[in-house]
Amino acid sequence: MLSATDRGKVADYIAQLGAIDPNQFGMSICLANGQSLSIGDATTEFSIQSISKVFTLALALRRYGDRYWDRVGREPSTNVFNSVQELEVRDGIPANPFVNAGAIATTDSLLVGAEPKETLAEIIRFVRMTASDEEIFIDPDVAKSEKATGHRNWSLAHFLRGSGNLLHEPDLVLDTYFHHCAMAMTCEQLAMSGRFLAGIHPEGNLIPPSQVRSINALMMTSGHYDGSGEFAYRVGIPAKSGVGGGILAVLPGQASIAVWSPGLNAHGNSLLGTKALELLSKALNLSVFAID
Amino acid sequence: MLSATDRGKVADYIAQLGAIDPNQFGMSICLANGQSLSIGDATTEFSIQSISKVFTLALALRRYGDRYWDRVGREPSTNVFNSVQELEVRDGIPANPFVNAGAIATTDSLLVGAEPKETLAEIIRFVRMTASDEEIFIDPDVAKSEKATGHRNWSLAHFLRGSGNLLHEPDLVLDTYFHHCAMAMTCEQLAMSGRFLAGIHPEGNLIPPSQVRSINALMMTSGHYDGSGEFAYRVGIPAKSGVGGGILAVLPGQASIAVWSPGLNAHGNSLLGTKALELLSKALNLSVFAID
Amino acid sequence: MLSATDRGKVADYIAQLGAIDPNQFGMSICLANGQSLSIGDATTEFSIQSISKVFTLALALRRYGDRYWDRVGREPSTNVFNSVQELEVRDGIPANPFVNAGAIATTDSLLVGAEPKETLAEIIRFVRMTASDEEIFIDPDVAKSEKATGHRNWSLAHFLRGSGNLLHEPDLVLDTYFHHCAMAMTCEQLAMSGRFLAGIHPEGNLIPPSQVRSINALMMTSGHYDGSGEFAYRVGIPAKSGVGGGILAVLPGQASIAVWSPGLNAHGNSLLGTKALELLSKALNLSVFAID
Amino acid sequence: MLSATDRGKVADYIAQLGAIDPNQFGMSICLANGQSLSIGDATTEFSIQSISKVFTLALALRRYGDRYWDRVGREPSTNVFNSVQELEVRDGIPANPFVNAGAIATTDSLLVGAEPKETLAEIIRFVRMTASDEEIFIDPDVAKSEKATGHRNWSLAHFLRGSGNLLHEPDLVLDTYFHHCAMAMTCEQLAMSGRFLAGIHPEGNLIPPSQVRSINALMMTSGHYDGSGEFAYRVGIPAKSGVGGGILAVLPGQASIAVWSPGLNAHGNSLLGTKALELLSKALNLSVFAID
Repeated sequence: MLSATDRGKVADYIAQLGAIDPNQFGMSICLANGQSLSIGDATTEFSIQSISKVFTLALALRRYGDRYWDRVGREPSTNVFNSVQELEVRDGIPANPFVNAGAIATTDSLLVGAEPKETLAEIIRFVRMTASDEEIFIDPDVAKSEKATGHRNWSLAHFLRGSGNLLHEPDLVLDTYFHHCAMAMTCEQLAMSGRFLAGIHPEGNLIPPSQVRSINALMMTSGHYDGSGEFAYRVGIPAKSGVGGGILAVLPGQASIAVWSPGLNAHGNSLLGTKALELLSKALNLSVFAID
Repeated sequence: MLSATDRGKVADYIAQLGAIDPNQFGMSICLANGQSLSIGDATTEFSIQSISKVFTLALALRRYGDRYWDRVGREPSTNVFNSVQELEVRDGIPANPFVNAGAIATTDSLLVGAEPKETLAEIIRFVRMTASDEEIFIDPDVAKSEKATGHRNWSLAHFLRGSGNLLHEPDLVLDTYFHHCAMAMTCEQLAMSGRFLAGIHPEGNLIPPSQVRSINALMMTSGHYDGSGEFAYRVGIPAKSGVGGGILAVLPGQASIAVWSPGLNAHGNSLLGTKALELLSKALNLSVFAID
Repeated sequence: MLSATDRGKVADYIAQLGAIDPNQFGMSICLANGQSLSIGDATTEFSIQSISKVFTLALALRRYGDRYWDRVGREPSTNVFNSVQELEVRDGIPANPFVNAGAIATTDSLLVGAEPKETLAEIIRFVRMTASDEEIFIDPDVAKSEKATGHRNWSLAHFLRGSGNLLHEPDLVLDTYFHHCAMAMTCEQLAMSGRFLAGIHPEGNLIPPSQVRSINALMMTSGHYDGSGEFAYRVGIPAKSGVGGGILAVLPGQASIAVWSPGLNAHGNSLLGTKALELLSKALNLSVFAID
Repeated sequence: MLSATDRGKVADYIAQLGAIDPNQFGMSICLANGQSLSIGDATTEFSIQSISKVFTLALALRRYGDRYWDRVGREPSTNVFNSVQELEVRDGIPANPFVNAGAIATTDSLLVGAEPKETLAEIIRFVRMTASDEEIFIDPDVAKSEKATGHRNWSLAHFLRGSGNLLHEPDLVLDTYFHHCAMAMTCEQLAMSGRFLAGIHPEGNLIPPSQVRSINALMMTSGHYDGSGEFAYRVGIPAKSGVGGGILAVLPGQASIAVWSPGLNAHGNSLLGTKALELLSKALNLSVFAID
């Protein structure tokens, strides 16, 4: 199944990610009945990066409800994930919560009325709750590295600020943003954390089901940046990827799946991870679009 | 349920559509068990327009398989449905089969090895088979009117031709294109025709299930032009709209739904039709993204 | 001076132009005192193509005055000369009279109240008058070839028509447009014809001096498509190029210069012609921006 | 001549500029013979803002020659002056030295091998030399205000840095940039400083004439942002504007003209200043494109 020899290119714009051995692959699945299956490097930690946007979106929706959408759109993006151009065309309103600009605005919204440390604590507390695991932590070196070199994110944050769509100073928001992107998780932890989006969390609904439905819809149309249409076509499962090589996929009512392989395709999504999900989806007919 | 007073604006760039009374609404549902339900103006004929793109895509996929995708992309569009700009940015490769440029290329592919009349006959024969109804026909006046005034489509066709992505002369392709867009159907007929995409057609699979899955995925990410993200978020059902006010929605394995109301929203999709599907989806938990 | 070995690429999208020997170069200069100088292939006819846009603009300004600018802008273009994208971004108002869309709109304006043949006759009559030469004619084969293969121009014309910025059917306008672009002239004839823009025509001002000033300004900012900034920087003389390899340059009050060499640079302007004008401008300090 | 009642809108994104009385107008002209003429508020200081880009460009050309153009283009811009979109489309190479991104890159190039304070001192020394006036200074409050609120410039600087087209940290470059933009000058001082571009400076050529020609050409095609085509058409004189309401115009070999009126038009150029130059140009036939 995973004989693929082309493993893609490890993200190298973040020093810590560039040093990772691309010959790794892990997968973990949590089923509705509480069972868990894991293969490969499912207990190796990796940087979840953009997958963290799912958790901050959940927190922002829980806090603001539909008012959240005043600042961020719901349309797919056809530009690269860190496009400032798209933000300028859209007058400072990010296309959706999963492009970097949208996620930065989300983080900004979570900072209202709280110190950055408190907001970060709230985010990590929520992720730990979703995963039923108190061991999940943030890798401070990754956060520091991104803060120093993530100039496109700085560019986006200042653009948002200049457009009146950032309530705090870029420095404050990005510090929080880079930290929550730097959460380290294993496939097992990530699959566990995805249960709340599949509606199979043992503690019931952590956020209202209507908001879970929204997040799943957004993962389908926008979860893989400008490769989202391709992913929907090939895999057909709501999912969110990160440049660390992780993908969190959600089968509503059935299962939560996490895959990880650090080599990326041209859109910045895990090459082997995508392939694995495609094979799995076809073999077990998991696509929400399938009729057979 | 349908007390909405704002009924949107009837498409008026096609004379015949502009004359239609916006105070009409119909819906029809075909279930897996063969049952059918209809309400309102479900037996009134309307111009299916872009919904015809679903049928020509099915024919092209059946004929060419994956080779079809050499000429057309699979990504959502963030531009208006008849955008030439998008085509220029993408070097003559339409974003997906449901923007006008993509559908024109699809029609072109169906003309290979056949006279236009034969191709049109093949399309109408296929639609009649999907609907189990020999009464479905093309309204020649609508086709004629579009051919005379559809300058943006002419612009797209010439652009495709200039980019080497149109095998026949624009005149030939557009004549066929405008004719299949001018098919007149009722909600009842359209719901019947959608059964092959829901996998509930009495004659079994008219095209391979893997191709049905592809079409459903594309309807989810691109079925409502630059309002596709919004539709996925609000309704969460694969669906294709047309400027005639019709929408064909597909619940894989369960049902085919057709709604019609001629007033359109800003994206060119039926305003009441979208609202009706949203209410239905929420009331019955039909979204493929729902967990409850 | 002309030892340059890289002669650029002959335009090959028009069959007749693609067949021309790139090893040709001619130049002709008309001075204020009535003197004329010619070197090289200055009596060989070539297709003036986009240089004809200068003459149609002159006619349109003479007829409509400032009302002409209701339909066409005055800003440089940063897109390729036949960009439909730019037209869509600008809502159907061409950036300037020298991009194809602008010139098509200009031709359309000249068709008001006249048969196409009369309009063509008016254009050729005007060109002959500027050149004091009754021998200038249109090459019907070039016009016919462009009409059959110039799909980008058809795309532009239909876009203009769809935007309400074309008063006649695309077929009618383009027939006239392709014909006036197909005028054949020699360097000697072209330099003669440019005298009215230099203010040195023996019969005095053929159009008001204020309109000549406007045309010269537009040639400076937009005469070489998206290579106009480069031309202003290197040469510094108002000039208009054509894909046939000709360039008409105007030194207000002093001289009219025509160069021709069929090989083109990446922007579609004569490679050797541009180089020759650059050398001439520097040697004789002809740039309007020069202080020495 | 200046009865115009619509005086435009004062730039209000910089607090200090927003407080300025729009009912002010000054003009000063330096002629080749050493004579000077002034009218109106010609001795009132204003913030020269983007006009400072002319001086930094002169310094960068003097230091780097043609190597300067490796980092910055020479084409007009059709986007707003602080467009990040344009920079993304052009892969991090600014369109020209007069859009903000280009000027930031220019400032960055002047910082090589020097402390920011030394670079600022070099710039102010050069401006004082051009104006033969040691009294010209920088308004630190304006610089400070821009540094705090100029988020679009921060966005541009980070984008450049992320594209590898900024050699120093954004903070360092912008600090220098905002300071040289905050130079305060009167019309009289500005007209004096423009003499080196008109080739009429009493101390001879401060930079090589070929570089002056380049700067004048760039002022013509790009000196008024996306209103440059309009300015060339109406006025026809190489000129550079700033959002402080100043315009420096150069008649090669003849004169240097400075106008100031703080109300701006839609493109961010002085409304009355532009009108005054247009009237002057037409009355005295100053356009470099004029034949009469």
